[in-house]
Amino acid sequence: MDFKKPETVLDLNHIRVALIRMEDTILFDLIERAQFYTSPAIYDASQLTIPGSNKSLLDFLLLESEKTHALVRRYQAPDEIPFFPDEIPEPILPPNEYSRVLASYESEVNINSLIKEVYTKEIVPLVSAGDVEQAENYGSTAICDIEVLQALSRRIHFGKFVAEAKYQSEKARFRALIEAQDSEGIDAAITNAAVEAKVLERLEAKAETYGVDPTLRWSQKSQGKIDKKIARQIYEQWVIPLTKKVEMDYLLRRLEDEKEA
Amino acid sequence: MDFKKPETVLDLNHIRVALIRMEDTILFDLIERAQFYTSPAIYDASQLTIPGSNKSLLDFLLLESEKTHALVRRYQAPDEIPFFPDEIPEPILPPNEYSRVLASYESEVNINSLIKEVYTKEIVPLVSAGDVEQAENYGSTAICDIEVLQALSRRIHFGKFVAEAKYQSEKARFRALIEAQDSEGIDAAITNAAVEAKVLERLEAKAETYGVDPTLRWSQKSQGKIDKKIARQIYEQWVIPLTKKVEMDYLLRRLEDEKEA
Repeated sequence: MDFKKPETVLDLNHIRVALIRMEDTILFDLIERAQFYTSPAIYDASQLTIPGSNKSLLDFLLLESEKTHALVRRYQAPDEIPFFPDEIPEPILPPNEYSRVLASYESEVNINSLIKEVYTKEIVPLVSAGDVEQAENYGSTAICDIEVLQALSRRIHFGKFVAEAKYQSEKARFRALIEAQDSEGIDAAITNAAVEAKVLERLEAKAETYGVDPTLRWSQKSQGKIDKKIARQIYEQWVIPLTKKVEMDYLLRRLEDEKEA
Repeated sequence: MDFKKPETVLDLNHIRVALIRMEDTILFDLIERAQFYTSPAIYDASQLTIPGSNKSLLDFLLLESEKTHALVRRYQAPDEIPFFPDEIPEPILPPNEYSRVLASYESEVNINSLIKEVYTKEIVPLVSAGDVEQAENYGSTAICDIEVLQALSRRIHFGKFVAEAKYQSEKARFRALIEAQDSEGIDAAITNAAVEAKVLERLEAKAETYGVDPTLRWSQKSQGKIDKKIARQIYEQWVIPLTKKVEMDYLLRRLEDEKEA
């Protein structure tokens, strides 16, 4: 996919290849996070206070990282969505020339707060190494969290490209559904149960492969770094439904742009 | 390993487990970097200028990241070594209580400049996806570089713990060698060819396993994301020798501390 060439971005085969590659990134990042404890203090400013900030340690580090990356235009890229869109600076580098591929309101489709809530409350307890308190690992843990969150956010918000590609390929059908604000109909139109089942199967296979030291695979010491059933659950319960929420949020407004044009 | 309990840190079995786990992190990070092009402009401030800075894009992002992480005491941890030790601020969080495990001069044993040079000049061209110029990926590429560099730095500077553990276990032998500043003798004392061969073998197996989508492994489409021979070469030519350089630099000064004590 080349964001300067719209036809490559809205090709569902290209999108699928990108999504499959992102599974590896998400699993690598979850495996890294699984080395550390749950560490709820990282997510709660009342438990761990950062002098001069009212943010939790995670939010503090995430915002500082976004500020720096915004300067070098990370959030100009159509596939990068900030968690703190109102607190980041303008780029200091000249803009890249991206062609517009998505509808004009696309940056308003941002469910990062929801992703962060689901991640810290539901996913972290499932993948972490347990409930021990170990304050000297808070920083390393939060840095892993940022990696996972950014990878999940990119994957889930890729739903915008999926939605636009589907809209373009079946305009009449989607226009009627959007006109009627028929969420159920849209949901049926964007759901492909066979593809979803395949994604989940692949997730399990990857989690098992990447999560075990191959030189220990046939020894008694073999121990997975992430449970393959949990990897599957993360996609089944959150990643896929949240991607579809992005598609839905994007599509329900899609006629706004048609009227303008 | 628990940095509050020196006996766990200087146990060579614990060190070995930590080093084996780090191989996975390094490979995951290299696999992520391998998605992007060589992008020499990232490493050269004369090719890509950051307004208000005389640093390259990589150095700019790395320093900004180190500044933020220093605030939350990353570089207080004995296994985290900054690339810009003279440019980072003091922590804003109260210090963790680490027991002193290494000699007092340990923070002066810092070969990060050398690691960065080797990485950008030698390793990047080996693992990257080729020589195309694609400016809109510069940021993502540099962020991957930072991950790899920090993982390599941590692995290589773990040589300090290896060196201290070996020193403690054979004090008389090492004292004589250090007294004589006998680098060759020290090199022989810290080298275990059988262990090194095993590391390289394991690296190849891991690179092959983590670098291939398992669901494509037996299809024609299967294509590794990192060449296992290159993974091996990176360890053989740079990671292992640089770790031994850290051990050597650390040990040659080890009697300074004995005199003080």
